[in-house]
Amino acid sequence: MPALAIDLAVVREAALLLQGRARRTELIHSHFFSGACGVPLYFKCENLQRTGSFKIRGALNFLLRQPEEALRQGVVAASAGNHAQGVAFAAGVRGIRALVVMPETTPLAKLQATRHYGAEVVLHGATFDDALQQGRALAAAAGSLFIPAFDDPLVMAGQGTVGLEIVEALPEVDTLVVPIGGGGLIAGVATAAKGIRRDLRLIGVETAAAPSALLSRRQGEPTAVPGAYSLADGIALKRIGDLTFPIIESLVDDIVTIEEEEIAQAIVALMEKAKLVVEGAAAVTLAAVLGSRFPRRGKTVCLLSGGNIDVQTIARVVERGLLAEGRFLKVKVGLDDVPGALAALAYHLGGCGANIVRVRHDRHSAALPLGRTEVHLELETRGPEHIEEVLRHLVEAGYGATVLP
Amino acid sequence: MPALAIDLAVVREAALLLQGRARRTELIHSHFFSGACGVPLYFKCENLQRTGSFKIRGALNFLLRQPEEALRQGVVAASAGNHAQGVAFAAGVRGIRALVVMPETTPLAKLQATRHYGAEVVLHGATFDDALQQGRALAAAAGSLFIPAFDDPLVMAGQGTVGLEIVEALPEVDTLVVPIGGGGLIAGVATAAKGIRRDLRLIGVETAAAPSALLSRRQGEPTAVPGAYSLADGIALKRIGDLTFPIIESLVDDIVTIEEEEIAQAIVALMEKAKLVVEGAAAVTLAAVLGSRFPRRGKTVCLLSGGNIDVQTIARVVERGLLAEGRFLKVKVGLDDVPGALAALAYHLGGCGANIVRVRHDRHSAALPLGRTEVHLELETRGPEHIEEVLRHLVEAGYGATVLP
Repeated sequence: MPALAIDLAVVREAALLLQGRARRTELIHSHFFSGACGVPLYFKCENLQRTGSFKIRGALNFLLRQPEEALRQGVVAASAGNHAQGVAFAAGVRGIRALVVMPETTPLAKLQATRHYGAEVVLHGATFDDALQQGRALAAAAGSLFIPAFDDPLVMAGQGTVGLEIVEALPEVDTLVVPIGGGGLIAGVATAAKGIRRDLRLIGVETAAAPSALLSRRQGEPTAVPGAYSLADGIALKRIGDLTFPIIESLVDDIVTIEEEEIAQAIVALMEKAKLVVEGAAAVTLAAVLGSRFPRRGKTVCLLSGGNIDVQTIARVVERGLLAEGRFLKVKVGLDDVPGALAALAYHLGGCGANIVRVRHDRHSAALPLGRTEVHLELETRGPEHIEEVLRHLVEAGYGATVLP
Repeated sequence: MPALAIDLAVVREAALLLQGRARRTELIHSHFFSGACGVPLYFKCENLQRTGSFKIRGALNFLLRQPEEALRQGVVAASAGNHAQGVAFAAGVRGIRALVVMPETTPLAKLQATRHYGAEVVLHGATFDDALQQGRALAAAAGSLFIPAFDDPLVMAGQGTVGLEIVEALPEVDTLVVPIGGGGLIAGVATAAKGIRRDLRLIGVETAAAPSALLSRRQGEPTAVPGAYSLADGIALKRIGDLTFPIIESLVDDIVTIEEEEIAQAIVALMEKAKLVVEGAAAVTLAAVLGSRFPRRGKTVCLLSGGNIDVQTIARVVERGLLAEGRFLKVKVGLDDVPGALAALAYHLGGCGANIVRVRHDRHSAALPLGRTEVHLELETRGPEHIEEVLRHLVEAGYGATVLP
């Protein structure tokens, strides 16, 4: 077996270098989720890190270690998200120019944030791979240094400082739950945490939309998966790294996958119960505990890797999360087309405690017989049983109600 | 002038009593808002407090100080929100029964949370005042102890422990910004903070929808205002307390008010930039700094009093916040009713960097001439200038576009 790319010593060196530059983020004990999961549960809040994710750690460690002559022509990176901001921020700290190539589909908020931290942004191509190719080409043409997103010893060592902080803050941690995208974060964290606490249990979590690490483990070598949409876009990568993979194989105890609905629910649960905003890639760790993907045991830390979720996405997942939890009911109700009919319906709904979130009342649908009309309702309820109760109540009151998907 | 109802010593006693029962919440330095405001800015995160708000502090201090015989018949409270959960939680700690009267309009999430912490909930009346009357009546009939929401020395002293923690964590704080509803929180915090640091500047913030403290200051006595809807429902109270008012008058340097749009924007900004979920009543403190309601100066702490915002409200304020920031554009565009017309429009919009959030395309509107159709678009943009650019671009491409409210 070849030697692993990094060890505990280089993570400790990175920690010294990052002192005062990256935030030592909060490790927050959650009473609510400890109760809900039956184990003491903590969140390591890299969503509260500068730029909103852990990515500055790797970028800082990489850039601060480069000799000045390597940086004369500036640096280039390609990213659809947090790595862009991490590089922009780190280049600012080092006082050099950074160019970041982002796909044309990049949300405005991420583009603006990257510019805000001082990088020049070039939009190129429809996918991350297009942007990556262009980034490498631009770096080669200009003689600039290209900063890899994860498959690099210095980047991994930087990310590993998150693991050091966790073990230092909670030496008796039993289980550490970490997202896997390209593998840079979990490789670094595993090296640090298991370097100090060999007996600690380390769980890696992927989105089921892009389970490259799991597939690679089964195949015994880094294996690509098709690109796919996921709410956890930050970890929906096609292929685990060549350097990160052997570390994951030797140090990560289990790799589990999470479905989209679970991600949406975990994002909403973290907002409602922990008052924390996280992106999908971070929410997978809590989703893995909530979904019992591994035996719950001992003090458990969910690494919340970032908080850069679009506010529009928040609005969407709230609706989706309520739907998935069975708290949201979309229903079509037939009414006589007479004054007061809608008011009477609203009265009945109020009586059984359902909140009307949205009403669409179309009196001009050609599909309806004369004298009849219908109303589309979106209702917030207390849960599946309450939905049954609301529907029973409507039927008893003489309404025809059809549940909509 | 009469003696004030509490002093620093009773707040210190409360702090001892609360140790290990209430969380010593995080004081988080915000790089982003420090940069945006030009002063070092910190958030005291009572949204991360157990039950999601500071209210457990006052309820715990009140209940833990009662002799056992006073609690034999249980306790009663009335609340539309955080006080309900605070009382339910504190009663659980003390091991006694609690009954909470809530208005019938209470959001389901708050009702469920109150039950979750073990209280019995009775829904009564349309407004908080109705629930309050019923609560007092039930308490009198049953011989139970009624727990006031703010106008009580033990409650105020409990809330004051937030102020102690701030000054202990950041002794050099210059300015402390605190929400005012009934005045219990700010009276306690003022007593603690100014008791230790007489020269500290203390700003109270109200919602403009219910500015009882400001009006009372002008009138020289506690003065009621009409009830009103506000996103900051937790502080939209009709009348400041009789005990809290004199403390506010003697210790609070300035009282300022915040408009609804500013509250929505501050809620969204805290989610986007600080990754924290707060309720409207908490967001007013950041809104006051962002809106320059007082001269910015020195290390500034915004007290984020709670995080109990309905997820549906989050979805609404996101849209409202983007609108108010000028990032959200609703527009109606006329099209020829031919295949590909919508695709061509989408292409033009993509070309100028506007994200299409929602499309409504009604080909059957009777109001349109034959051969014409129209599409309603909701677009996310980079801001007011970008909106101008998008509209100019549409006109140059030959589209008729009408901005919708």
